[in-house]
Amino acid sequence: MKPRHVLKSLFVLMLFVGLAGSGLVLAADPLPSWNDGETRRALIQFVEKSTEENGAGYIPPEQRIATFDNDGNLWAEKPIYFQLLYAIDKVRDQAQKHPEWKTEEPFASILKGDNKTALEGGKSALMKLIAATHTGMTGEEFQASVQQWLASARHPETNRLYTEMVYQPMLELLTYLRDNGFKTFIVSGGGIDFIRAYAEAAYGIPPEQVVGSSLKARYEMRDGKPAIVKLPEVNLIDDKAGKPVGIYQHIGRRPVFASGNSDGDFEMLQWTTAGDGPRFGLLLHHTDEKREWAYDRDSPVGHLDKALAAASKQGWIVVNMKEDWKQVFPWGNR
Amino acid sequence: MKPRHVLKSLFVLMLFVGLAGSGLVLAADPLPSWNDGETRRALIQFVEKSTEENGAGYIPPEQRIATFDNDGNLWAEKPIYFQLLYAIDKVRDQAQKHPEWKTEEPFASILKGDNKTALEGGKSALMKLIAATHTGMTGEEFQASVQQWLASARHPETNRLYTEMVYQPMLELLTYLRDNGFKTFIVSGGGIDFIRAYAEAAYGIPPEQVVGSSLKARYEMRDGKPAIVKLPEVNLIDDKAGKPVGIYQHIGRRPVFASGNSDGDFEMLQWTTAGDGPRFGLLLHHTDEKREWAYDRDSPVGHLDKALAAASKQGWIVVNMKEDWKQVFPWGNR
Repeated sequence: MKPRHVLKSLFVLMLFVGLAGSGLVLAADPLPSWNDGETRRALIQFVEKSTEENGAGYIPPEQRIATFDNDGNLWAEKPIYFQLLYAIDKVRDQAQKHPEWKTEEPFASILKGDNKTALEGGKSALMKLIAATHTGMTGEEFQASVQQWLASARHPETNRLYTEMVYQPMLELLTYLRDNGFKTFIVSGGGIDFIRAYAEAAYGIPPEQVVGSSLKARYEMRDGKPAIVKLPEVNLIDDKAGKPVGIYQHIGRRPVFASGNSDGDFEMLQWTTAGDGPRFGLLLHHTDEKREWAYDRDSPVGHLDKALAAASKQGWIVVNMKEDWKQVFPWGNR
Repeated sequence: MKPRHVLKSLFVLMLFVGLAGSGLVLAADPLPSWNDGETRRALIQFVEKSTEENGAGYIPPEQRIATFDNDGNLWAEKPIYFQLLYAIDKVRDQAQKHPEWKTEEPFASILKGDNKTALEGGKSALMKLIAATHTGMTGEEFQASVQQWLASARHPETNRLYTEMVYQPMLELLTYLRDNGFKTFIVSGGGIDFIRAYAEAAYGIPPEQVVGSSLKARYEMRDGKPAIVKLPEVNLIDDKAGKPVGIYQHIGRRPVFASGNSDGDFEMLQWTTAGDGPRFGLLLHHTDEKREWAYDRDSPVGHLDKALAAASKQGWIVVNMKEDWKQVFPWGNR
């Protein structure tokens, strides 16, 4: 190599190192599964401004708290919440040990394969189901049971593992936020322990950043070893007005970014976006009958009415799944 | 400069850059306020081994959860818990608005300056005091009130700000653990909101990593704005067997390192060190009458008896404050 070529190579190398060091190297598209449009542009603008130190949209790193609903927001919720499908499978698994279930609702209907009738019993049926399948064991036993189920149970329509029913565009959004210094949390009406069993592997969200509905627990000695035992008594219903309360108890500060998809998320979005300074409320609308499911005000799961009506006045950005997403699941579409 | 000197300088520079890059530059002493001895050596050995990837003491980064009690462990607790001193000051501040307090305990004794009698009412007196000073306002108002108090109130014996009553050796331990990939949490019998008001500034521990006793809260509209209102109803007593429960509800996994100083920490230490793999239980014994305070089984605050007796059998390391600490507070000693 001639000396001037060496110098040129060195110069190019230095330029590259310099650019990399200053963060100016062009990053790969952070949201490849989002179609170019208002929603994507609003997300990118918010995140970019949040890190511009002297700009009006700047958010100090410790305040970059982003909360996400789970069912129908990070993973699917049709035909019914997956946690219920877990509970139903557990009832079937344990039926032999419970002959009394043959005549006792909601178990009797579940064992006949009639989930619809089983769940018509409302809250009381649900609590019986939860008590039978989510309590009595230790926290660690419950977690192992959920993980075992998730490793083999299949979605009734797509035949995919439930952990494959996560939304690719939302995975990208979580990563994008974290890459920009946001701490991502789940704030779900679903059970905290159920979500914690898979959230780290599926979403990169550690157990301590999962907030959800919870049962009370007791510390006791079992076979000479300390254990946490799950009790059939509600601790927190982390839904609707319970979401800001759950956020207050667990996180202790108001998020600047909240993402949900149902009326259960109304108060979380309201609480988040009513704060001072830059705020972002994201509302996912299931509009894609072909690639996912289309539902809102008439659906018992992911019921969306009030929040959708309020979105425009509240300044929340509505994701139109059909228009805004290039792809729904990591493996493609339904 | 002669060419060979330039080369030598370049070589030295490269060596330095290389060493820095490979992390081999000798680090400054991570625990300068700890005297060389068994305690300090045990801490350093545990932390160093936790990051040695193929060693027997290795702990995967996501499992590096360290929990610390607060009162008498990260900051002092004599003459009584500082949160009680806050409540007492608030009673005095608000006395004019509450003429009925002149004849109602525990308020009457507090207003006469007789805290001892006031607190003899036990749990019921304490709940009245908490209800009067910790509820009714929004979470944000309470936090502002605590911060205002901490900015000016003085410790009755040292005349220092309460946030100056933190233990220098423990600040170093928190930083040392964090520098080695541990996530540090507070798990306190004290009030979660009270600690959250200053933990980030004092200890570098963000609100979402504070677990403590808590009251219930409600989401409501106040003057047209959403607010979280603190209610006079207990949510969790994060003490004794409540500590592993608080850890379970908030963190969702078992710590590998726990640090406490009283019988209120027994179950947290037990739960932590009964797990598989490398574990560390640290028990601070207040033995320093001159530089701090000396107390254990006869003290109503920081009562330490059962945990001290169990330490050796459980493999917990006991910090003898007098012997193990070079210096107690950041500004020196009492």
